[in-house]
Amino acid sequence: MPASYESQFGGILADIEEEMRAARQEQREVAPLLWQMIDHHFGWDAESAAQRARIAGKRVRPVLMALVARAITGDYRHVLPAAAALEFLHNFTLIHDDVMDRSLERRHRPTVWSIWGSDQAINAGDGLYALANLTLTRLLRLAVPPARIVRAAAVLSQACLWTAEGQVLDMTFPQRDDVTVAEYLTMITHKTATLIEAATQMGALLSTDDETIIRAYGQFGRALGIAFQVRDDYLGIWGDEAVTGKSATSDIHEKKKSYPVLVAWERAAAEDRETLRRLYAQPALSDDDVHQVMRILERAGAPAETERVATQYYEAALAHLDDTGLANAAQTELRQLASFLVRRAY
Amino acid sequence: MPASYESQFGGILADIEEEMRAARQEQREVAPLLWQMIDHHFGWDAESAAQRARIAGKRVRPVLMALVARAITGDYRHVLPAAAALEFLHNFTLIHDDVMDRSLERRHRPTVWSIWGSDQAINAGDGLYALANLTLTRLLRLAVPPARIVRAAAVLSQACLWTAEGQVLDMTFPQRDDVTVAEYLTMITHKTATLIEAATQMGALLSTDDETIIRAYGQFGRALGIAFQVRDDYLGIWGDEAVTGKSATSDIHEKKKSYPVLVAWERAAAEDRETLRRLYAQPALSDDDVHQVMRILERAGAPAETERVATQYYEAALAHLDDTGLANAAQTELRQLASFLVRRAY
Repeated sequence: MPASYESQFGGILADIEEEMRAARQEQREVAPLLWQMIDHHFGWDAESAAQRARIAGKRVRPVLMALVARAITGDYRHVLPAAAALEFLHNFTLIHDDVMDRSLERRHRPTVWSIWGSDQAINAGDGLYALANLTLTRLLRLAVPPARIVRAAAVLSQACLWTAEGQVLDMTFPQRDDVTVAEYLTMITHKTATLIEAATQMGALLSTDDETIIRAYGQFGRALGIAFQVRDDYLGIWGDEAVTGKSATSDIHEKKKSYPVLVAWERAAAEDRETLRRLYAQPALSDDDVHQVMRILERAGAPAETERVATQYYEAALAHLDDTGLANAAQTELRQLASFLVRRAY
Repeated sequence: MPASYESQFGGILADIEEEMRAARQEQREVAPLLWQMIDHHFGWDAESAAQRARIAGKRVRPVLMALVARAITGDYRHVLPAAAALEFLHNFTLIHDDVMDRSLERRHRPTVWSIWGSDQAINAGDGLYALANLTLTRLLRLAVPPARIVRAAAVLSQACLWTAEGQVLDMTFPQRDDVTVAEYLTMITHKTATLIEAATQMGALLSTDDETIIRAYGQFGRALGIAFQVRDDYLGIWGDEAVTGKSATSDIHEKKKSYPVLVAWERAAAEDRETLRRLYAQPALSDDDVHQVMRILERAGAPAETERVATQYYEAALAHLDDTGLANAAQTELRQLASFLVRRAY
């Protein structure tokens, strides 16, 4: 995580971390292995604070929620249990995603399944999702009105259901050669954007009863989430290896049907499209194939189109932020965080 | 499901089914495959009502919840969303358990993972758990006070976390040869009894603010859940094949460390214990081995001890039912249902 992010949001990050640990510590341990897996995933077994911070990641969702709460009320302490719950929920999906993707590493550590096996990793994810829901009920102790808590629970659960829907769709894409750009947007809206939408929406509905403000923050989060993912797809092909830390063309090597590829699939000239279809029908792509795909993508205008769409959603997000009618330091920080997420080069 | 159960609780079962379907139908389908898996699991794609009922199973947890609500208030309609949520939650754990156990069949149908693969079955379970939580928030529309809904959500989530803890423990037992009877009771208390405890506790706390009554129903459910599982372990070895529908000694063939086996492990004479250890250290048991294990179990008094413990928890459950201070037709039905669950021969 870049030093600027850390220094700007360090206070919020520390409060979120404290709430997560308190919620986790409150649980009586029945099966020590369950907590060992969870502690490993969050780096809570790591020796140094620096290590722990590296493993924790950016925690963008809870930070967004805290900033929205601050923009509306001037404070964010009343949403901390919801912020911790959302971060737990997000991480439960990561633990299960790693099982499905057979990913060996996450945040510089071996994944849970790669150490304890897929079966126990399923349990770790299930337990963590339950912990997320339990953590949300800690809002009661902060005297948040129960009706708001129930509504927050509904948003959290709907987001989780939609994330599962997005993941189901995503896993059907590799076997298909007719995925459209529109379907892809539906998939990332559910798989990625709904949890970011939940972050901003929950931050708002736990802070105000003004439905216009709640709706605007929700739309801000959703548009930002889509912009973030499309930008991520751009960086997965044209990112600077030195900055992203992964091979620039790895998304193509893995035959990911990411946004730029689907743009080319729809817009490339007939001959290029046929070549693309032939290349992606192979079990694996050689370096030469990757090079050829890159040229087809460029001829189809995929880089510019991908950037255009990311920018379009980014600008829509900022417009929704204006729709709240609020202008204060926290709103400015939300703009900076949005810019950081979408304008990043890594 | 026996005809008597069906005829006694048919009205409740129909109402639970209707609530489950309404909650499911309310969801806009994003990934049709997710709903195909869920519909398959519940038999909602089956042609005839008789088939659907066979696949639905006994739905003991929601029926218990409805009866508790009726015992307290005379009605159960105000808990139906919670009853449906609990049944969804229970079934999400079944879908994931089937992945972990590689079970091919559940309620006369192929398991979700055996048709769509483990990865999509993980998604189906995750989505169903989210649907369970969403369904609980339908209580709002029945004018249940939000504070009660939040408390019900906490009970549901704690039960789910404990179920995951129990499952983690259970999966560590096969590799160990020092599992004690006490550890086993801890495992089944969490893996099996907490969802039954959640059923009776939620039925109560959604119906009254009287903490004595809420506590008594919770304890009734927990004791009943333990009695049920210990009785199940008895039937897994000495049940009547013709009635249980599975080979009487299948639990021994599978080297399950169920209650009777652990009793023998603790109580058998030194020589028998050594034989037991040797037999269970083998990769598989022959018919002769199974026969030998059976005789060791009998010499150690395992059948009688298992029956004794099941009866002890059963009687404790009935005593907790008396602790509620309530006496009415629904209380009588709860006694009948408890008897049905623990005295059954199948």
